[in-house]
Amino acid sequence: MRAAIFNEPGLITVGERPDAAIVEPTDAVVRVVMAGVCGSDLWYYRGDTPYEPGPIGHEFVGIVEEVGADVRIVRRGELVIAPFAFSDGTCSHCRRGITSVCTNGGFIPVGNGDGGQGEAVRVPLADGTLVRVPGSGHSDQLMASLLTLTDVMGTGHHAAVCARVTSGDTVAVVGDGAVGLCGVLAARRLGAERIIALSRNPARQEVARAFGATDIVEGRGDEATAAVLELTDGIGVDATLECVGTGEAMETALRIARPGSMVGYVGLPHGVEFPVLQLFVRHTGVLGGSAPVRAYIPELLDDVLEGRIAPGRVLDFATDLDGVAEAYAAMNQRGAIKSLLRVSTI
Amino acid sequence: MRAAIFNEPGLITVGERPDAAIVEPTDAVVRVVMAGVCGSDLWYYRGDTPYEPGPIGHEFVGIVEEVGADVRIVRRGELVIAPFAFSDGTCSHCRRGITSVCTNGGFIPVGNGDGGQGEAVRVPLADGTLVRVPGSGHSDQLMASLLTLTDVMGTGHHAAVCARVTSGDTVAVVGDGAVGLCGVLAARRLGAERIIALSRNPARQEVARAFGATDIVEGRGDEATAAVLELTDGIGVDATLECVGTGEAMETALRIARPGSMVGYVGLPHGVEFPVLQLFVRHTGVLGGSAPVRAYIPELLDDVLEGRIAPGRVLDFATDLDGVAEAYAAMNQRGAIKSLLRVSTI
Repeated sequence: MRAAIFNEPGLITVGERPDAAIVEPTDAVVRVVMAGVCGSDLWYYRGDTPYEPGPIGHEFVGIVEEVGADVRIVRRGELVIAPFAFSDGTCSHCRRGITSVCTNGGFIPVGNGDGGQGEAVRVPLADGTLVRVPGSGHSDQLMASLLTLTDVMGTGHHAAVCARVTSGDTVAVVGDGAVGLCGVLAARRLGAERIIALSRNPARQEVARAFGATDIVEGRGDEATAAVLELTDGIGVDATLECVGTGEAMETALRIARPGSMVGYVGLPHGVEFPVLQLFVRHTGVLGGSAPVRAYIPELLDDVLEGRIAPGRVLDFATDLDGVAEAYAAMNQRGAIKSLLRVSTI
Repeated sequence: MRAAIFNEPGLITVGERPDAAIVEPTDAVVRVVMAGVCGSDLWYYRGDTPYEPGPIGHEFVGIVEEVGADVRIVRRGELVIAPFAFSDGTCSHCRRGITSVCTNGGFIPVGNGDGGQGEAVRVPLADGTLVRVPGSGHSDQLMASLLTLTDVMGTGHHAAVCARVTSGDTVAVVGDGAVGLCGVLAARRLGAERIIALSRNPARQEVARAFGATDIVEGRGDEATAAVLELTDGIGVDATLECVGTGEAMETALRIARPGSMVGYVGLPHGVEFPVLQLFVRHTGVLGGSAPVRAYIPELLDDVLEGRIAPGRVLDFATDLDGVAEAYAAMNQRGAIKSLLRVSTI
């Protein structure tokens, strides 16, 4: 089969790989319909985080092509959403909703196995991991929204949950990447009344507004902090979503959070520090991690299917598997918010 | 008037001070009936934290002796609880329940003014700060419990609130000082089903059990971590109260917290660090600060008056104002959990 291959930073090509196949009786093989390029893929592409040459990608929706002997729920021919982490759905952490630390779980690609940016993927623990999508004949736009549930929409939602967004809140979202924009949408969905999006990019500001942002702050660092504090009478916001993962973004987030509030953070920290005394004196809480998107898919899926949210709008560059190099390049140059690969048709 | 005076580390004496008096029209003067020695006073006593020579102490209950011209709620002759921080009760932070960061607030002693361990105290923002105690003829034991509401019981409760203790939870409490023990009681009050207290001191273990601890872990550091993990099938606890403030205590707390759970911390951090990647990978949240005890007094007071909780048991050494040096020495040698000064009679 054909799949995207990470060769070295800056060089993604399409190559031949062994066909995806059942290895464990709890596996399924999913034929990929749509795949996404994630902000975290860009860390590798830019050489900021080491990555073994080989298959890449962990966001995909597709059709179940084959299931192992022990798979009971998922069936051949079904349209499924594959969260970026696989999980059994039964361990203590999964039952608590933190599926991303499942005792038997892991991340895709598994080892040097199939990546999401390819024609098909072996998915371990299929019954715990894959979520079936009801209905048929879904539009291209709806499919794009389903694709965001594999990662960015669930991740933005996790930031909002960790930040404890509640009805009527004033919320700030640091980061205008796909996750930050989905964080705006998630905050709105949870009832935030005022949402301050930090963004300097007009196209992203437009999506932020469409997703529910009521205020845009264009500055960065001290300037952004001052602007958010001014918007909130010097008090700070009720809930803060840190959707970047850099030290500067976290510093801003910690300074605009009002005392007693939480900063939810979901980007793998790069150069982030938590200044203990500042957190104590200002009563700022932090909670985050690799989002348990599997746990959130059912509720978010309902909202997508019923048209209440359309997070697929963050996918503003589309190509096919052969265009994967351009898909990365478009995001890397910040021309695109997020790239979509149409790999096959339903 | 007479009051305890901090001279230098290890040397607390009783001396003469100008009588407590109204300065601002929003002040009240409270004649002290009972005062407590706080674990944080011991930081100064031991020379671990610098302290200006002068009055000391911030835990007291007493009778209102005089009120300023603008005081509307509190009246002369009333028995009141004075939380360790004063606050206006009306600013944005107070309305949110984080009274310890009140825009107009501060801590007692104010500057080098009256300390709680003395015959009387000028209390700023009396209407926002003081809480009136209904009824009369309260027993000595009940008075001791009221005294804990000025600090340690509210602080233990804050740790439990920050750790998000909810009904049915398995909770761990790191620290067997007065705050830790009150944390056990607070966790029980919030419905925790299983409470693991970390303590190596038999007298404190007994109080912990009386307050609701179901399990005692005697080890420290790695040993304590292993013991708690063993008690929880390797998963960790649902909520963790860190009631010490040292690096070792926090390290243990962060390692026994199950993924997705919160560590509530309330001791001023000394040598504490938050390892960002560990927190992210293990999904451990932290929230804490100087407890907004004023906000908690009403609900805790009801429970004390109706006999549902009796946190006064942590005050296991009692003397009068002249005995203040022994009161400190008893706690410093860990003979006493917490010392009580009977300063005057109701």
